[in-house]
Amino acid sequence: MLYFENDYSEGAHEKVLGKLIETNMEQLPGYGMDPYTRSAKEKIRKACGCPDAEIYFLTGGTQTNQCVISAMLHPYEGVIAAQSGHIGTHEAGAIEVSGHKVISLPQEQGKLSADTLADYLSSFYGDENHEHMVFPGMVYISHPTEYGTLYTKGELAELSDICSEYRIPLYLDGARLGYGLAANETDVTLPDVAEYCDVFYIGGTKVGALCGEAVVFTKENTPMHFVTRIKQRGALLAKGRLTGVQFDALFTEGLYFETGRNALETAERLKECFRDKGYEFYLESPTNQIFIVLENERMEQLRKDVVFSFWEKKDETHTVVRFATSWATKMEDVEKLAALL
Amino acid sequence: MLYFENDYSEGAHEKVLGKLIETNMEQLPGYGMDPYTRSAKEKIRKACGCPDAEIYFLTGGTQTNQCVISAMLHPYEGVIAAQSGHIGTHEAGAIEVSGHKVISLPQEQGKLSADTLADYLSSFYGDENHEHMVFPGMVYISHPTEYGTLYTKGELAELSDICSEYRIPLYLDGARLGYGLAANETDVTLPDVAEYCDVFYIGGTKVGALCGEAVVFTKENTPMHFVTRIKQRGALLAKGRLTGVQFDALFTEGLYFETGRNALETAERLKECFRDKGYEFYLESPTNQIFIVLENERMEQLRKDVVFSFWEKKDETHTVVRFATSWATKMEDVEKLAALL
Amino acid sequence: MLYFENDYSEGAHEKVLGKLIETNMEQLPGYGMDPYTRSAKEKIRKACGCPDAEIYFLTGGTQTNQCVISAMLHPYEGVIAAQSGHIGTHEAGAIEVSGHKVISLPQEQGKLSADTLADYLSSFYGDENHEHMVFPGMVYISHPTEYGTLYTKGELAELSDICSEYRIPLYLDGARLGYGLAANETDVTLPDVAEYCDVFYIGGTKVGALCGEAVVFTKENTPMHFVTRIKQRGALLAKGRLTGVQFDALFTEGLYFETGRNALETAERLKECFRDKGYEFYLESPTNQIFIVLENERMEQLRKDVVFSFWEKKDETHTVVRFATSWATKMEDVEKLAALL
Amino acid sequence: MLYFENDYSEGAHEKVLGKLIETNMEQLPGYGMDPYTRSAKEKIRKACGCPDAEIYFLTGGTQTNQCVISAMLHPYEGVIAAQSGHIGTHEAGAIEVSGHKVISLPQEQGKLSADTLADYLSSFYGDENHEHMVFPGMVYISHPTEYGTLYTKGELAELSDICSEYRIPLYLDGARLGYGLAANETDVTLPDVAEYCDVFYIGGTKVGALCGEAVVFTKENTPMHFVTRIKQRGALLAKGRLTGVQFDALFTEGLYFETGRNALETAERLKECFRDKGYEFYLESPTNQIFIVLENERMEQLRKDVVFSFWEKKDETHTVVRFATSWATKMEDVEKLAALL
Repeated sequence: MLYFENDYSEGAHEKVLGKLIETNMEQLPGYGMDPYTRSAKEKIRKACGCPDAEIYFLTGGTQTNQCVISAMLHPYEGVIAAQSGHIGTHEAGAIEVSGHKVISLPQEQGKLSADTLADYLSSFYGDENHEHMVFPGMVYISHPTEYGTLYTKGELAELSDICSEYRIPLYLDGARLGYGLAANETDVTLPDVAEYCDVFYIGGTKVGALCGEAVVFTKENTPMHFVTRIKQRGALLAKGRLTGVQFDALFTEGLYFETGRNALETAERLKECFRDKGYEFYLESPTNQIFIVLENERMEQLRKDVVFSFWEKKDETHTVVRFATSWATKMEDVEKLAALL
Repeated sequence: MLYFENDYSEGAHEKVLGKLIETNMEQLPGYGMDPYTRSAKEKIRKACGCPDAEIYFLTGGTQTNQCVISAMLHPYEGVIAAQSGHIGTHEAGAIEVSGHKVISLPQEQGKLSADTLADYLSSFYGDENHEHMVFPGMVYISHPTEYGTLYTKGELAELSDICSEYRIPLYLDGARLGYGLAANETDVTLPDVAEYCDVFYIGGTKVGALCGEAVVFTKENTPMHFVTRIKQRGALLAKGRLTGVQFDALFTEGLYFETGRNALETAERLKECFRDKGYEFYLESPTNQIFIVLENERMEQLRKDVVFSFWEKKDETHTVVRFATSWATKMEDVEKLAALL
Repeated sequence: MLYFENDYSEGAHEKVLGKLIETNMEQLPGYGMDPYTRSAKEKIRKACGCPDAEIYFLTGGTQTNQCVISAMLHPYEGVIAAQSGHIGTHEAGAIEVSGHKVISLPQEQGKLSADTLADYLSSFYGDENHEHMVFPGMVYISHPTEYGTLYTKGELAELSDICSEYRIPLYLDGARLGYGLAANETDVTLPDVAEYCDVFYIGGTKVGALCGEAVVFTKENTPMHFVTRIKQRGALLAKGRLTGVQFDALFTEGLYFETGRNALETAERLKECFRDKGYEFYLESPTNQIFIVLENERMEQLRKDVVFSFWEKKDETHTVVRFATSWATKMEDVEKLAALL
Repeated sequence: MLYFENDYSEGAHEKVLGKLIETNMEQLPGYGMDPYTRSAKEKIRKACGCPDAEIYFLTGGTQTNQCVISAMLHPYEGVIAAQSGHIGTHEAGAIEVSGHKVISLPQEQGKLSADTLADYLSSFYGDENHEHMVFPGMVYISHPTEYGTLYTKGELAELSDICSEYRIPLYLDGARLGYGLAANETDVTLPDVAEYCDVFYIGGTKVGALCGEAVVFTKENTPMHFVTRIKQRGALLAKGRLTGVQFDALFTEGLYFETGRNALETAERLKECFRDKGYEFYLESPTNQIFIVLENERMEQLRKDVVFSFWEKKDETHTVVRFATSWATKMEDVEKLAALL
């Protein structure tokens, strides 16, 4: 069986696991006070070109979104997101559970455009009744988006400018950031992300770690008593080393970027195969997620040998499916899949 | 100055106020245990043709929506509403504060269609990932809607059928119910509302009371310990008589329906005037809210003599405004306005 | 039947009701933008000797406590209260519903002592693990307390000093403030309350209004967008005039203080009667609530002619009960009760 | 330096880590749908003697308490706990964040007695005003308690009986359950826990895992859509294998019990040393936490060579400190510490 179901099918990258093994019996203080966590933070600060960055480690994407967003919003504020944004669709209402509205705006290929955002904000403050409405208190974007698409540096700058104008933070969900940074066509670097965003997270779970996301506050803007707030949401690990050690490994000798590149190389080859065989792309994604329209019978046949994801029904006889590569994908498996296509 | 700003500009209908005066010095038990509250409930049960109805009194619309919706939803559920629904737009996030998502679906003139609802529900349960999504746990409609439009009996029946099929309650926000029931063109009666809805409220604040909304659970389906839940939201009046006495008056000798009729008669006359003078209607509303497109200069001029509401900007030179009549509107004021048009 | 059950058995003081009647048909803007609300605020500012006070009107005590406390606390903070405090016992968890802990400290006759408070705060910050604990973010006291007792001016000053030292606000629940200010033995005036507290409320529901409490922020310290937060909790009245007009009446020509005095005069006479007949006082309360220990058979007998409140079981054969007077209590009813004792 | 600071200083037990290494590159479905998670559940069911048990894996104690308690309580309910209970003291208000009150009752050496519980419940339902109070909806105990003490089988049975009588679930926090089960003096087995409790969790983080707690619902009483509720709290791991594999290892060939025994053997030896040298015990704990009263100067001296925990100030010159052993403690380190005493 060939696995192209998602980018979290395996455990950890061998170097990440290696570091966990190597440090396993060291006696370390808990709650992130250990030297590996400290070292990981320092390495991330360097990789971001942001010496003042304040960094926290959490275990998963929904948890991170909930902790960060609820801590940064005032109680009368909501978070703006594209209609396809993860927080508004596939996080089971975690933002609402924390008492805040996700304000959904139209999306284009998973992205929120500066125009859409500016229009919304100017119209909100133009409404005489806005005291009876949820105040926009943050902008959430994901990069890559849920459709694997990427913002350009110019687009990030534009969104950032609008956020500055309205004095609300720009937050980037980087669950798959490693795959975005490794894309051929992108002009966005990690320091760019740190420059344009007020807060973002570097995804580990989907990019080589067993679990873990690194939250980066870039403007000395960590919410007060953020550790207590993490604790309040049940998100503070007693063995903080678990995420600290892993990120220390991921940011040693560029491992995080290397894992990204493997996913992209295998994805590019796979896209080539689909293209060569005349498959229909649902949309052009420059990263590790490939969305293909399959005729339903063909889909069932392929399922016998390959694991991939159902995305959505297109029409009565066609379905959109997703093939994902990852840090762990082997080129030989891509070739095997190519042979099956 | 002529007031057509809204339907809550005056205090209480004289008969409502009269009853408050008459009973003022009686010594009564608190928290809704008094005989007037009991009597009001009994009268409402009769007016609804629903002898088993369970009734509670609250003070305002947002409070009622928050108390009812949060008490009826499971924690993993959200409430479906038309995109223009009050709970999703002008209640400052009160539903999200209670931990629940408002699931917005497209609207047509403020209404949620049975087709839109059915499509959403069938697509939700068709999604393999729906365990990571907010479950639809209730349908919210308003009648009249935010645009003053009305559901037909057939439309209510259809929505009710779909809700039954998916075993979720249908909730009707009747902030202006009195004006909906009094419309010329409607085929919906109060017993119809009680039949098709699992829970609804009869608005008092906008229909002749100083404050007060009557929540009606029609299927012996009051959430457990609902009084405690009302208390938890700070919504339990020590002097429950305040709302009990008012609703007792409103449902004596059909006063509630009578107040509705006055609003409709004055509204119909006003629409006639607008039509005669060639004003552009933003949409056709069969109830007490009239939406007119005004050229901006004309609007400013009119504002010198008349108070009305800004609704939204139409384009650079035109604005949508709202004129509302109410139980208290005098026909002579309508004629004065007509003269100004 | 004689009523001494509580201080909210009647409707409104005649002058309060009179003002509602007088202004009933005036067409006024909603949501507290009317001139009566403005006038009431101005009169309260004067009565408090606090020209910068920021004032908001809500409808009931639990609602007020929830709105004020949740708006002033940071999300990682709880509110300190005496173990007998209303917010920790008889508000159905309204503070917890808003996400905050009530930190209960030992009480003495319903009061929180400065020593108890200081010990708790110094011990909290002395604990190395306090980042894993709920931060104390506010001090809640009630005056009169749930047992009818009163703080002295010196005690308020001491609490206020400790709060200043730890930079947390002191909040006074004045549900029965009028009865506290009218006590013979008190040295606390309304300006004192305004001086020592960062925020407090002047109770209307129990002191002559149909409903309504006036929240007073004394140090230009209203939480940002407080109106939106009130709306979020379903506590914003469309007809804001309802509370505005009542408080305008209550603070005209000292009516609020006058209503307090009637309660105290009747209470003093009633205490005298109990004392003369040799009844056992559960505690000495200087205000309008009288706590008496009754032998159970005596209690049942008395219940045939008098309505009073069960407070708590004392032992197998005795019960603590409460007799309350109010602005509406007639001296002749006290004498009738005296005759029965 | 000798470490006796806590029981989570090291990474994972070598067999647990070994299993993570062994399965690392297997391609497995996410969200707990993998065979190791399935196998772990089956093994736990057997170890509990409870074939119908429903089991879920979470990452930490506070998270587990928040997810379980908030999912099992009705919105109008709170959870009863001893005043020293972890949820009421050191979880930063995580229960209140979920909207529920922790109802604190007096404790004896960290334990909640059946009498205390019964008195509270009977008094609650005896109060005529209990509709204005937080309903008791669950009983929380920890075993071992925060002081390392243990319930007897008889005590668990009594608590369980009272809970049954009042139809509220009994929940046992087993963060250190392995150390409780391994105690010499206990008569409580894992099947006993499963029999008397409606839900409990088996702690992994402090008993040999990198992270992870196994929640066990013993009476086919998992709250509806519990997975969605876990997701809502940000507690659903994409790589569910992380906890599944670890618990599969911990429940293979009795490893969980074995790790418990090592902690107890080293703790017993350490207690003996303290006793022999005449140290004062703060209380007698039968498990792996040892509470000693140290003279402050002695404490500072010892700190040069040993890491232990501050517990609380006893008086001006003495401090209560905690020494903890764990699955990883080496007897030779105990002897080194003995030599220092």
